[in-house]
Amino acid sequence: MIKVGIVGGTGYTGVELLRLLARHPGVELTAITSRGEAGTAVADMFPSLRGFVHLKFSDPKDAPLSDCDVVFFATPNGIAMQQAAGLLDSGVKVIDLAADFRIKDVALWEKWYGMTHASPTLIAEAVYGLPEVSRTQIRGARLVANPGCYPTATQLGFLPLIEAGCVDLGHLIADAKSGVSGAGRKAEIGILFAEASDNFKAYGVPGHRHLPEIRQGIARAAGKAVEQVGLTFVPHLTPMIRGIHATLYARITRDEDFQALFEARYANEPFVDVLPPKSHPETRSVRAANTCRIAVHRPQGGDTLVVLSVIDNLVKGAAGQAVQNMNLMFGLDECSGLSQVPVLP
Amino acid sequence: MIKVGIVGGTGYTGVELLRLLARHPGVELTAITSRGEAGTAVADMFPSLRGFVHLKFSDPKDAPLSDCDVVFFATPNGIAMQQAAGLLDSGVKVIDLAADFRIKDVALWEKWYGMTHASPTLIAEAVYGLPEVSRTQIRGARLVANPGCYPTATQLGFLPLIEAGCVDLGHLIADAKSGVSGAGRKAEIGILFAEASDNFKAYGVPGHRHLPEIRQGIARAAGKAVEQVGLTFVPHLTPMIRGIHATLYARITRDEDFQALFEARYANEPFVDVLPPKSHPETRSVRAANTCRIAVHRPQGGDTLVVLSVIDNLVKGAAGQAVQNMNLMFGLDECSGLSQVPVLP
Amino acid sequence: MIKVGIVGGTGYTGVELLRLLARHPGVELTAITSRGEAGTAVADMFPSLRGFVHLKFSDPKDAPLSDCDVVFFATPNGIAMQQAAGLLDSGVKVIDLAADFRIKDVALWEKWYGMTHASPTLIAEAVYGLPEVSRTQIRGARLVANPGCYPTATQLGFLPLIEAGCVDLGHLIADAKSGVSGAGRKAEIGILFAEASDNFKAYGVPGHRHLPEIRQGIARAAGKAVEQVGLTFVPHLTPMIRGIHATLYARITRDEDFQALFEARYANEPFVDVLPPKSHPETRSVRAANTCRIAVHRPQGGDTLVVLSVIDNLVKGAAGQAVQNMNLMFGLDECSGLSQVPVLP
Amino acid sequence: MIKVGIVGGTGYTGVELLRLLARHPGVELTAITSRGEAGTAVADMFPSLRGFVHLKFSDPKDAPLSDCDVVFFATPNGIAMQQAAGLLDSGVKVIDLAADFRIKDVALWEKWYGMTHASPTLIAEAVYGLPEVSRTQIRGARLVANPGCYPTATQLGFLPLIEAGCVDLGHLIADAKSGVSGAGRKAEIGILFAEASDNFKAYGVPGHRHLPEIRQGIARAAGKAVEQVGLTFVPHLTPMIRGIHATLYARITRDEDFQALFEARYANEPFVDVLPPKSHPETRSVRAANTCRIAVHRPQGGDTLVVLSVIDNLVKGAAGQAVQNMNLMFGLDECSGLSQVPVLP
Repeated sequence: MIKVGIVGGTGYTGVELLRLLARHPGVELTAITSRGEAGTAVADMFPSLRGFVHLKFSDPKDAPLSDCDVVFFATPNGIAMQQAAGLLDSGVKVIDLAADFRIKDVALWEKWYGMTHASPTLIAEAVYGLPEVSRTQIRGARLVANPGCYPTATQLGFLPLIEAGCVDLGHLIADAKSGVSGAGRKAEIGILFAEASDNFKAYGVPGHRHLPEIRQGIARAAGKAVEQVGLTFVPHLTPMIRGIHATLYARITRDEDFQALFEARYANEPFVDVLPPKSHPETRSVRAANTCRIAVHRPQGGDTLVVLSVIDNLVKGAAGQAVQNMNLMFGLDECSGLSQVPVLP
Repeated sequence: MIKVGIVGGTGYTGVELLRLLARHPGVELTAITSRGEAGTAVADMFPSLRGFVHLKFSDPKDAPLSDCDVVFFATPNGIAMQQAAGLLDSGVKVIDLAADFRIKDVALWEKWYGMTHASPTLIAEAVYGLPEVSRTQIRGARLVANPGCYPTATQLGFLPLIEAGCVDLGHLIADAKSGVSGAGRKAEIGILFAEASDNFKAYGVPGHRHLPEIRQGIARAAGKAVEQVGLTFVPHLTPMIRGIHATLYARITRDEDFQALFEARYANEPFVDVLPPKSHPETRSVRAANTCRIAVHRPQGGDTLVVLSVIDNLVKGAAGQAVQNMNLMFGLDECSGLSQVPVLP
Repeated sequence: MIKVGIVGGTGYTGVELLRLLARHPGVELTAITSRGEAGTAVADMFPSLRGFVHLKFSDPKDAPLSDCDVVFFATPNGIAMQQAAGLLDSGVKVIDLAADFRIKDVALWEKWYGMTHASPTLIAEAVYGLPEVSRTQIRGARLVANPGCYPTATQLGFLPLIEAGCVDLGHLIADAKSGVSGAGRKAEIGILFAEASDNFKAYGVPGHRHLPEIRQGIARAAGKAVEQVGLTFVPHLTPMIRGIHATLYARITRDEDFQALFEARYANEPFVDVLPPKSHPETRSVRAANTCRIAVHRPQGGDTLVVLSVIDNLVKGAAGQAVQNMNLMFGLDECSGLSQVPVLP
Repeated sequence: MIKVGIVGGTGYTGVELLRLLARHPGVELTAITSRGEAGTAVADMFPSLRGFVHLKFSDPKDAPLSDCDVVFFATPNGIAMQQAAGLLDSGVKVIDLAADFRIKDVALWEKWYGMTHASPTLIAEAVYGLPEVSRTQIRGARLVANPGCYPTATQLGFLPLIEAGCVDLGHLIADAKSGVSGAGRKAEIGILFAEASDNFKAYGVPGHRHLPEIRQGIARAAGKAVEQVGLTFVPHLTPMIRGIHATLYARITRDEDFQALFEARYANEPFVDVLPPKSHPETRSVRAANTCRIAVHRPQGGDTLVVLSVIDNLVKGAAGQAVQNMNLMFGLDECSGLSQVPVLP
């Protein structure tokens, strides 16, 4: 059994990790930390876990993290970069669900995240944990940077086109819509029920932190410099709990059977489902499951492709993908613990 | 492997049965019928089941139901009573998720359901499928009447008090709130998003079909005639998809340690969770799981008890309880296929 | 034109007051204060008010409140009691939308609200602002205690029965459901969208501050001591923005034509609408309007009455009722500025 | 007083017309028809209108429509085209809220709407009722084709750019999100609460009927042929009742002060509000009001503009705009009856 620790288990990605790991046949939950909730039983805070999780939150400084085989950081940005080196030195593998190790260009990271990186040398070692792109490297990784939710949905939707080199790299558009859990479990006015319900808005149009992450991934897939990727990324808040729907637009530069291109690219991917032509994936069709469903359209046979890509932001966009990465890092079946049927309705 | 058939698989209880049975280790889905959708792949209608369910809907008259070990009726009221006898004669066990066999008094049933019962002799044989009450009889049953959603939440909340005989049987109040999926997957104006969202209302106050079912269960638990049970039952529609919250009121006639009473009553029940004193169970704490969570309050030490009881109407209130009953009828572990962690948030 | 000041305009009752007063033909908005937002244009914070409200928030200590004819306190509990005396001394009338002056028994208030009352002598003078009960006194009042949202819906539903003396005063039950805006515009985890959406729960079952307020009102209507009123009050949080639905239960002690009783009681009330028999009022039928709609039921002709009472918690339950009180205090048409058609859907 | 008739008053645009007209100082509601509900009091069907609307639905063949000054058609497509000529001949003005007279190219209309046009000669006469474009013609019109909801939000967002000729006309993208009331008040599975809540999806990506309407409007504004307008239009269903959020993308072909361009274009428009730079309009900021709010962004100073445009689909996107058109057609103040403050929260 793999001994698992979780740092920062009181947010939505933390409780989702617990939901998935509690039923994972190959792991043993060993420690979960929370500065504010030390001593509280996890199941007292999240009654949905009563009978499944028997741990208490422990203070970060007392937690037996170095006895774990792997530690997940479900923390705000800037925490994992301070603690990862110590754990790695103790032989513990690390999966960071925050953004600390996602961007390879340290200066770019520091600009977007507004802090000095505490562990720049680890950035080079960290593997970006999108298994559909880097499965082999993840298998050998000590440190995995788990992708962001928008970047997961967006990259999986764009990748076949970018790798095939058949769209204009300079004018990509990602119009993405997220459920409110994507904003985290934080006491903030803007995500109150009475603010976010029965309402729709864009946010971060001048610039969102997931933009450089997506551009990096697209540049890598294209084999081009980041500067050659022109991406307009507009995130929106939509009144649902879970789910991301990315509507992606790309100008065609070379004709293809795009449906076949997508189907071939993901033929062997257990967690990417290319829908039949003319489909419209719904976010609820992946609710609580580690699946990305994609449809590709060419409206009226024009020169603009529309790709629709949906995930559950807390699963394939966070905790589920982290478990998928863990499975790869420890040589388990990649799907272990991840075969939940989506909850519909 | 138990061969399972489902009659009427296009409603919410049907798709929920499929979600649960698709991952049940002891069953094999053999047939699913739908008059309107014969020939359609189940996963085309419910993309959440892509990769999990490979069956097509078949026409009821062609479906190999008599080859099944058990058939679930996830149909409107009035269907199972026409087909159950034939299946039972073929040696097939039957679990009816509708109301056809729930009420022992045929005349009463006919009055509330507005039709003549097609199979009154089977009513006596049918076992009311609330395992917390009738586990032994269910184990030996050929025909199980799966309880309604409101009756499940309400009976589980009242039972310890009724069995202990410590409340006024003549003046019980059940104020129950249901998510909209409880109304079924029917094209009706009143349950449109734009009607039911951001809205709250009572309905059926003059009389709801679940009233006689609850009264019957309470009378049985009390060992009294139905006429001695005075119950005011007010159902409400609340803008959520899944979940029932029953708020129950009973006048104390004999003092007790009510918390201890509830804990003792459900100590060995795998799917009933009595919360600590002063708790307020949330419906989301059981979302997509087969659990009933209960809290008992005595506000200001007065003579009125308040019991809060929550279930997922589609799971413990329908499909999950049906699977629980199937497990019992076939000698499987009662929890088999039912260990999903609730989905929160 | 009546010069109006608002203390604490950044909460939901504050912005609702602004929505109503901005179109009120008889008032002029003179000042609105906020300690945290001084200098910010109101319409920058609430873009819905662009073009309607041109004021900026001012610091409480600089605001020309003593030049106003009336000041509304849309503040947390405990603020108005500190400032009301000074304003009254300056000849300014005061309407407190918080709870400071609602409870006549100072000790009881201090117990439930957990603070020492700063202005106990004013409590006696304050008029409880439920126009359907105290219209005459409100007309002559300098200081009005605007009722709470639950107490408004509950009292209006119970009043005809209590005044007629035809129900058991000792065993009243109020099962009330509120939209999330009732919890205020506060950065708290429990009212986040991802917590409160698709969820239903009771809260405050052991005791809620509106309990003594409702009991006081019922006792007054009955002409009895508070101790003679037995009330079980269970509030619930329901996933909608606005609206309260109170489901009220009372044991009949004397037979009556209850429908006629309600119709007669409210025949001349502009903001209470008694629905025809067998009706189920929906909260959306009063959304954004100052109306209470009520239906009365006697299920199966039994001895328990069920009254359904709905209001918009921010209008008849707060800001609208405050404007209604202002209209009375200044001799205006009681309906002035309050004739909005409910917004449905 | 203008005598007003409404044909088809049981849908959402019908009840919204009633909400607005009930308080309009210059009109008198004379007749409202419904084949299915003839004889029913309007307020029995929509209790929100109790006390405001005293009419009954009348059968279309009995309704005194020819005595009206103006008749609104709040009907499905294909009804107004059959009845408009007769009413116009009687001297009655007509405002069609459906699509019968929106598209000038009859063949194109017949292709998208799948029926033969019953009144093609009236198409030429009909004025497209977007006052921000055709105010003068509307003033003199007998027959107004009220724009669709998506076309209103999209055209108002694109117009300043198109008229200025500073963006690539061949590659416009409109990613639009609508609340569920946009689908109408129809008994359909896909818009049930339990289907549409907590879910997000695109629909109609291969082609939506509003596409040719938007292209026609853009071509007209550009002074170009429709074929020169390349528009990718992707509508989405978002779980809210009211509201449209259009996120518009255009490639810059000539640099401009885009903020100033928008502000100048709409400086005198009473119902278009250009927000300050870096704003993100929310749909709730226009809920229940006849306003369109717009923000314009140029992310990272690149060559792609992003315009955010929000309306209430039932008001500026339907009934409110229809009233605005009526005001113009009858020489009333354009804002008469349309000064509701948006309802927030």
